Amino acid sequence: MGTAEEQFRNLQIVCEQLAEVVKMGYGLAITHGNGPQVGDLSLQQELAKNIVPPQPLDVLGAMTQGQIGYMIQQSLGNSLRKIGIEAPVVTVLTQVVVDPNDPAFRDPTKPIGPFYDEEEAKRASEERGFFIKEVGGLGAKRFRRVVPSPEPKRVVERDAVRKLLELGFIVISAGGGGIPVIAEDGRLRGVEAVIDKDLASEILAESINADALMFLTDVDAVRLNYGKANEMKIGRISAYEMERYYEEGHFPPGSMGPKVLAAIRFVRRTGNKAIITSFEKTIDALEGKAGTIICG
Amino acid sequence: MGTAEEQFRNLQIVCEQLAEVVKMGYGLAITHGNGPQVGDLSLQQELAKNIVPPQPLDVLGAMTQGQIGYMIQQSLGNSLRKIGIEAPVVTVLTQVVVDPNDPAFRDPTKPIGPFYDEEEAKRASEERGFFIKEVGGLGAKRFRRVVPSPEPKRVVERDAVRKLLELGFIVISAGGGGIPVIAEDGRLRGVEAVIDKDLASEILAESINADALMFLTDVDAVRLNYGKANEMKIGRISAYEMERYYEEGHFPPGSMGPKVLAAIRFVRRTGNKAIITSFEKTIDALEGKAGTIICG
Repeated sequence: MGTAEEQFRNLQIVCEQLAEVVKMGYGLAITHGNGPQVGDLSLQQELAKNIVPPQPLDVLGAMTQGQIGYMIQQSLGNSLRKIGIEAPVVTVLTQVVVDPNDPAFRDPTKPIGPFYDEEEAKRASEERGFFIKEVGGLGAKRFRRVVPSPEPKRVVERDAVRKLLELGFIVISAGGGGIPVIAEDGRLRGVEAVIDKDLASEILAESINADALMFLTDVDAVRLNYGKANEMKIGRISAYEMERYYEEGHFPPGSMGPKVLAAIRFVRRTGNKAIITSFEKTIDALEGKAGTIICG
Repeated sequence: MGTAEEQFRNLQIVCEQLAEVVKMGYGLAITHGNGPQVGDLSLQQELAKNIVPPQPLDVLGAMTQGQIGYMIQQSLGNSLRKIGIEAPVVTVLTQVVVDPNDPAFRDPTKPIGPFYDEEEAKRASEERGFFIKEVGGLGAKRFRRVVPSPEPKRVVERDAVRKLLELGFIVISAGGGGIPVIAEDGRLRGVEAVIDKDLASEILAESINADALMFLTDVDAVRLNYGKANEMKIGRISAYEMERYYEEGHFPPGSMGPKVLAAIRFVRRTGNKAIITSFEKTIDALEGKAGTIICG
């Protein structure tokens, strides 16, 4: 994932856009992914495992919320002050409840951490109890740990996020999809899983009564027939139509799929709009001049 | 620092005490150290440094705020529900401003990370720009990285902490003394330093107008002539008297010293009381029946 310096530099570009959104008068609840960071962190933990006990995935998720939350909090604060806005930015650590009976727990699919050869894979499975799957690639067989990716049900700290937003804070939360926890006998307990960040963002957006759910990604708009001769950009579209395309398999599960699914859910459940666009087009999309805008 | 399981188990004992404090009707702002965690984390980062770029100390501090904040947040929430209290617990990532002209930056003293032999020490100094000091010990020479420990000046996120407390949240913040940042040209920037957690807790306590500042540690009360024949427990004491003992060198810099100093500062600056006691005596000390209680 590169050095902290590089990450701060990349963040600055994004935060300057977000600062403009705040300048337009919007309140902001920010979520973020943690794929590269949690990957690096689990790699470091594995390499040092004979000296320091590796932490479980819920704790690693919490660590990346600290890491990335801090970076966004500081960068966005700086970008805001640069354009004369004194809006406080704050990160709230976030647990997200999942259902222990979620079928995902019986079929772990999400790859995480280092690649193993056959022997390492066997050892990781025996010693650590990891689920291991063979992953594609030419040449020698390669293996990787896979973990469950259950559906997010509820953001535990939603009241804190909501109150802080009402008071004018810009709030960073639900990072990396949230720390996955299950509730049993009135107790919360972390689980070895990862929650899809887009679906968790949707749950958060619902619980704070967001006016819009916006996904900022690498492309300016969602495409049909992506990469083919008849590729077509989607602009304004109904949730109904979008769902049809989703079911036709237009959007790959690893990238655009979850964003489209989360957008459809948000529009269906709240009647408000969802937007998918690139960082560069954030302002244009909010003004209805760019991006894919999914409405009721 | 042991496995996450062990840490959760240790935390449970502490959190059951804290839950009783909440039951008594107190609002709670919780801070915590991060010594073992940031030590382990920097060890892991160093061991993997040829594969993943190590993160700087401010980022590592943020990661431990995530890690420990999550654990306390979940444990305390569970302990509260167990005794029938539905109080929300939330962790706020916290940056603490230090002065770039603090003399500590010219004289790093706080050891951190792994021990080195002479050659490793030389390499760490050349390749990473670390300040290295020889550390005590019989036999072969051993070295360790030392970093500055500047005075905390201001908690950046103090408003969020204060507002959440006013709304009835239990707030975890300023973990590990806070993420050290300097302000230059209106921008915040992380620095390679660690802030004393006790002094940072004092700054936080001031800025949230705390009625009392309480340090929970391994001993039930502060001692004069600790470990000697004339050892004496300190009960209720004025800040003036405590300062005299502090200046006479009764309290070692690595352990009780900063707590006593922070307690004196808090009492002097606010007129409110400070308490130093053990986890086990939390309730007794709040009722004035145990611990060292420093008053104006």
